[in-house]
Amino acid sequence: MSRWAPDTLSEHRCFGGVQGFYRQASSVIGLPMRFGLYRPPGALRGLLVYLAGLTCNEETFAIKAGAQAQAAALGLALLSPDTSPRGAAVPGEADAWDFGLAASFYLDATQPPWATHWRMESYLMGELLPAVQAELGGVPLGLMGHSMGGHGALTLALRHPGRFRSLSAIAPICAPTRCAWGRKAFAGYLGADEAAWAAHDASLLMQAQPAAAFAAGILIDQGEADRFLAEHQLQPEAFAAACQRAGQPLTLRRHGGYDHGYYFIASVIEDHLRHHAAALA
Amino acid sequence: MSRWAPDTLSEHRCFGGVQGFYRQASSVIGLPMRFGLYRPPGALRGLLVYLAGLTCNEETFAIKAGAQAQAAALGLALLSPDTSPRGAAVPGEADAWDFGLAASFYLDATQPPWATHWRMESYLMGELLPAVQAELGGVPLGLMGHSMGGHGALTLALRHPGRFRSLSAIAPICAPTRCAWGRKAFAGYLGADEAAWAAHDASLLMQAQPAAAFAAGILIDQGEADRFLAEHQLQPEAFAAACQRAGQPLTLRRHGGYDHGYYFIASVIEDHLRHHAAALA
Repeated sequence: MSRWAPDTLSEHRCFGGVQGFYRQASSVIGLPMRFGLYRPPGALRGLLVYLAGLTCNEETFAIKAGAQAQAAALGLALLSPDTSPRGAAVPGEADAWDFGLAASFYLDATQPPWATHWRMESYLMGELLPAVQAELGGVPLGLMGHSMGGHGALTLALRHPGRFRSLSAIAPICAPTRCAWGRKAFAGYLGADEAAWAAHDASLLMQAQPAAAFAAGILIDQGEADRFLAEHQLQPEAFAAACQRAGQPLTLRRHGGYDHGYYFIASVIEDHLRHHAAALA
Repeated sequence: MSRWAPDTLSEHRCFGGVQGFYRQASSVIGLPMRFGLYRPPGALRGLLVYLAGLTCNEETFAIKAGAQAQAAALGLALLSPDTSPRGAAVPGEADAWDFGLAASFYLDATQPPWATHWRMESYLMGELLPAVQAELGGVPLGLMGHSMGGHGALTLALRHPGRFRSLSAIAPICAPTRCAWGRKAFAGYLGADEAAWAAHDASLLMQAQPAAAFAAGILIDQGEADRFLAEHQLQPEAFAAACQRAGQPLTLRRHGGYDHGYYFIASVIEDHLRHHAAALA
């Protein structure tokens, strides 16, 4: 791993703390990677990692979600990684908005040409999160995400038991092996053999859990006017059924009239921060 | 004036209300104009107009300021007009970031080629604000703005006595006849004769006030790490001195470490909404 000495791209005082954007060479990815980090003023309770959705980058959450006010009040740091490697110049990486750039699905690709750089799971779990966590004095971790990042949050939390103390998601992709976005991504990154896909499907992972991984419960919010819900890209009911089978407490809230975007995220983000703060206390 | 029947560009449920973006042909401007409008749930106390700064558009405030949570709680609607005409194809309109597109300075230009379309004061005061105010049942108006929009808020409020019940600004351009941004804009829009400029300079307007226009006080917030403060583009001290001379109560707060951007705006926006809500009650 490269020495942890990220370049500061910009820092902004925000609610008494600092919202910064940084760049650090990643030895796992083989490219420089960007991330956002909000440091609240005062005592630190924990580090909440937010994984963003398709088309987003490390700035989206910091700009649009309005999370810093509550993070400052609760003593939570907020880490927002980028959504894929950038600068690899893989042929076709920018051809689609739901595959390649800004569409990593937070896994390690096994198929050429993606396997070289598209190693987001190893980057996050082995490089970025440990480094930031150590930088912040070893505070405990919470994990959340939106849409593709909700898929990332649910799968990484279940694939790395004990690593995160709390888990939540907003409009997550819950059954990627059974939706168009997920099937396209998994075929491209993991290959045609669907046997390899199940280990990255939150509902299938949850179904296979021997016991409740998050005794304090998982929080999921879903807008009812979300067009991707209607298009079966999200399928929260599949994850809810898997939780029930596994004995995993889940609070799945459905919100009439809300769509898939950041105006919805902003409307519920305080509840998510409170959910994590309670577990990280 | 065209019939008030704006096209809906998008609407998003947000904190129980609706954040919408709309387009309406403006007879004053002679082009379609866009604006954002947040309608809170429940009873409406007033309409707060927010004028944005250079490079911004009608979406910037809605996306970045995080104002809707508090607007919902206080019963304030939020109107965010665009920052200039668009689509006029005036030669050179996009050549600079501080003049032309997104840089109207919220006045009526008198010089060719700008005088035809760049009529933002008449558009706002005679067309957009009355229409939205009527649409919302005649609720009272508050006015605020940031940077160039802070200039717009302070000058329009003083040029139209009695029209706004409350006034505030964040990092406003306070003395445009004496700063580079203002002198460039006024020369271009109003011509070389500086005699015409004074009527659009907040500090000079305030100095000429016969009595306190806002008895409950004006609120201004300024970041101390704002590079444009150091470059003398803002000069809040000039406005403070003018307020003192005019007997106008002013709360000018300086915030150590904060810069010119939306992370600062988000950090103080709740105080501004409370300032306006108190006057609009």
